[in-house]
Amino acid sequence: MANIPQNDRSNFGAALFGLSLERGSAQPMHAQLTEALRALLTRMQGLAGLRLPASRALAEELSVSRMTVTTAYDQLIAEGYLTTRQGSGTYVADHLPHLARPAPAPARRRPPPAEPAPGGDWLPFQPGLADPALFPHRLWARHLDRAWRAPQAALLGRPDLFGWPPLRAAISAHLAAWRGLDCDPAQVIVTGGAWEAFDILGGALLPPGAALAVEDPGWATLRQAMTRAGIRPQPLRIDADGLNPGALPAGLAGAVITPSRHFPTGRAMPLARRLALLDWAERHEALIIEDDYDSEFRYQGQPLPALSGLDGLRRTLYMGSFSKLLSPALRIGYLVVPAPLIAAAHDHLAVTGARASLVPQPALASFMESGDFATHLRRMRRIYARRQAHLLRALAPVQDLLTLGPDASGMHLCLPLAGALADRSDDRAIAAAAAPAGLSPRALSSHSVLPDPPQGLLLGYAGFDEATLTQAAADFSPLLRRLATG
Amino acid sequence: MANIPQNDRSNFGAALFGLSLERGSAQPMHAQLTEALRALLTRMQGLAGLRLPASRALAEELSVSRMTVTTAYDQLIAEGYLTTRQGSGTYVADHLPHLARPAPAPARRRPPPAEPAPGGDWLPFQPGLADPALFPHRLWARHLDRAWRAPQAALLGRPDLFGWPPLRAAISAHLAAWRGLDCDPAQVIVTGGAWEAFDILGGALLPPGAALAVEDPGWATLRQAMTRAGIRPQPLRIDADGLNPGALPAGLAGAVITPSRHFPTGRAMPLARRLALLDWAERHEALIIEDDYDSEFRYQGQPLPALSGLDGLRRTLYMGSFSKLLSPALRIGYLVVPAPLIAAAHDHLAVTGARASLVPQPALASFMESGDFATHLRRMRRIYARRQAHLLRALAPVQDLLTLGPDASGMHLCLPLAGALADRSDDRAIAAAAAPAGLSPRALSSHSVLPDPPQGLLLGYAGFDEATLTQAAADFSPLLRRLATG
Repeated sequence: MANIPQNDRSNFGAALFGLSLERGSAQPMHAQLTEALRALLTRMQGLAGLRLPASRALAEELSVSRMTVTTAYDQLIAEGYLTTRQGSGTYVADHLPHLARPAPAPARRRPPPAEPAPGGDWLPFQPGLADPALFPHRLWARHLDRAWRAPQAALLGRPDLFGWPPLRAAISAHLAAWRGLDCDPAQVIVTGGAWEAFDILGGALLPPGAALAVEDPGWATLRQAMTRAGIRPQPLRIDADGLNPGALPAGLAGAVITPSRHFPTGRAMPLARRLALLDWAERHEALIIEDDYDSEFRYQGQPLPALSGLDGLRRTLYMGSFSKLLSPALRIGYLVVPAPLIAAAHDHLAVTGARASLVPQPALASFMESGDFATHLRRMRRIYARRQAHLLRALAPVQDLLTLGPDASGMHLCLPLAGALADRSDDRAIAAAAAPAGLSPRALSSHSVLPDPPQGLLLGYAGFDEATLTQAAADFSPLLRRLATG
Repeated sequence: MANIPQNDRSNFGAALFGLSLERGSAQPMHAQLTEALRALLTRMQGLAGLRLPASRALAEELSVSRMTVTTAYDQLIAEGYLTTRQGSGTYVADHLPHLARPAPAPARRRPPPAEPAPGGDWLPFQPGLADPALFPHRLWARHLDRAWRAPQAALLGRPDLFGWPPLRAAISAHLAAWRGLDCDPAQVIVTGGAWEAFDILGGALLPPGAALAVEDPGWATLRQAMTRAGIRPQPLRIDADGLNPGALPAGLAGAVITPSRHFPTGRAMPLARRLALLDWAERHEALIIEDDYDSEFRYQGQPLPALSGLDGLRRTLYMGSFSKLLSPALRIGYLVVPAPLIAAAHDHLAVTGARASLVPQPALASFMESGDFATHLRRMRRIYARRQAHLLRALAPVQDLLTLGPDASGMHLCLPLAGALADRSDDRAIAAAAAPAGLSPRALSSHSVLPDPPQGLLLGYAGFDEATLTQAAADFSPLLRRLATG
């Protein structure tokens, strides 16, 4: 028994270098390599811990691009066949997923949906999407199965209005570890997303008809959710540091801000401005709602701790979501409230009932407790950082038309127009021109309701593999050139 | 190999009759029997299809009550170890769940929740609850695992605003089979529950500030959800046939009714009244919203088809939910709309986004498609019918104080007060007096907002096993006697 694995271990390299991929096949090269590599890992034994060749070496051997290899490696990391060790390469995982379950159809072979999704297609550059192909579906299925095979009776009884208690505890631990925010699980309310968070705010935590300052540019859905909940959004143009408390009109009950990473420009609010805002809130007895949606994906430097942590959740509420960190399919978000507001939120929910499905909650709780969530975030951070760098490189041919520069965090780039493109076109015209080419960049100005909005292009990269980004940039560049010269 | 099963088959009866249960143990007799029987089924081989002794015979052999045996049988049916064949007894299932998975902790040993549920305790007689112990958790876990182990990519991409298409198709098929309602899956909108259904109604399908008649007595949450969505509820006292179109004031945009089983009295609306209501809607260009929440649980006679089916979904919308049929933990409901309203609902959801979590949806779809859901409903129907009959028998000592009578459907009884109890007390006083005894009957009058409400007691039975109902009735009866004589 011991010999066969050893044998496979030494044969693995030869088998790998001997793979033949079919050029010009309908199946992309990276998908062919993923499939072949998965098949080797499934059939050969005793490979656990074996180091894979560097992507450059394997790319040379197979006469494919290095990107083909990294894409295949990333996919198999996401599926649990491979792992990485910081700064030391890619290895065969200790516990291969195929040993527990039959190999699935490759995730990238997408069956056609039962009917066209009326929500629209999912087009390159569309911002704010996690890559479905990187969703850790095997782990997720395992956590779901564990949670529901022999469910705790409390899951099926009268639900806790604030959500499944172990999930609230896991969120509290996550915020302490990743966002520098200390809170008690009793302060965490699991929601069905931002709409429910604002429903609680408007229905229980703010005076009727209260007005909240919102950033402009900003997230349109947020304004709509506020209006629906009886809150009046008051858009205020941000400056380079975000919302300026000196410019806030009187009569506001508070403000909704994205201090860690302004949506959609990506700017972080400096400490001095944060302190000024908290001071403003203190003097006006106002509430700050901190919307923190993807700042776990930070690629350079230290992440700025949550503003709510700085304030100790006294005049701040913290709004989070798993839509960008894991998948919008979960439809799970949360709201962390100051302790004195717990009772009011509870009374409100006693009438409306809790909205978030209990089905994902115990699985998400154990996913977080087990460390699988943190591992997933670190993986995504690495992959997204590479995708961002890749997109910037792929856009180099139009560096005279777009102000290219790395972003320290996030899932999309916000690029100001430059040179002839800034002179002869505008962001909405560019977005409109890209649509027929099957691309979905967003106009920064479309996120404003105030006059004279800033111009720029939002290019989502996190949701797309490098091959897709290469192709999208190749399609996009001549289009920009034409608009700049036409 | 063939001999051992045969051997086990013939030994099974002796093993069963030889079980020894421990009287006075902290574990109830039925739980002990469930556990012992599960252990036998797990250890012995080749038992598939074997008929179990009749509950009366096994009860005599073990010197336990027949109820102890039926409770254990029901639990193991719910877990998939046993099955029933119409009118011919209980059998060992063809595919035992333990062959696929390790035996779970018995469902009835409930670990204490992490903290007291602020939603309140779950007390006997509380209406409207499905029994968590009968939730088909193994099947559910299997469907969840299957759906998420290798998820269709569409699940993780941009969601269909109306919900997961296969679930919408399954709901459409269910409505045709169980509710006599023909609709196209394109008309089905999966929601996060009644609040979202009214949000769509108020936001997109009704004129702003529209008024809808609602039944009095009726469901308070419904009035609150309507108000929140900008709809004005106009309560109207029902007569013996439900909402009377002749008594409806002018200026209504429509009415929300529970024709199959009025909530909370349980009355069904006769055909003549249904036709009169549809005629009223036609003449006033009004919409009827049919709220159909548990009429799958019908114990006598033919179920009345949905009103919406009678109308062909022309002026009717149909609102359904899985909260009572499966579990409120799913937080999944649906709204079926007339074809001409699809576009408006879609435009609304394009702004608000879909709210229902995608996590349960593919599992629920395959649960329905596979027939497991229909099997579950039939099982629950049988168990709930027995529980209702059991509760009525257990209340016989107070038949002079409550008007006892079987209900053809539902999950709770609505019992008018009688005799001295009607003279000397009222339903709210009774409900208040029952609370310290750990019982949660509801006052019928608490479901009214109009003056001079009808009096009665709502006693939930579906969510409680027969032992619990026996004890609850034994605790409740002297309390009623005291109120009637005090």
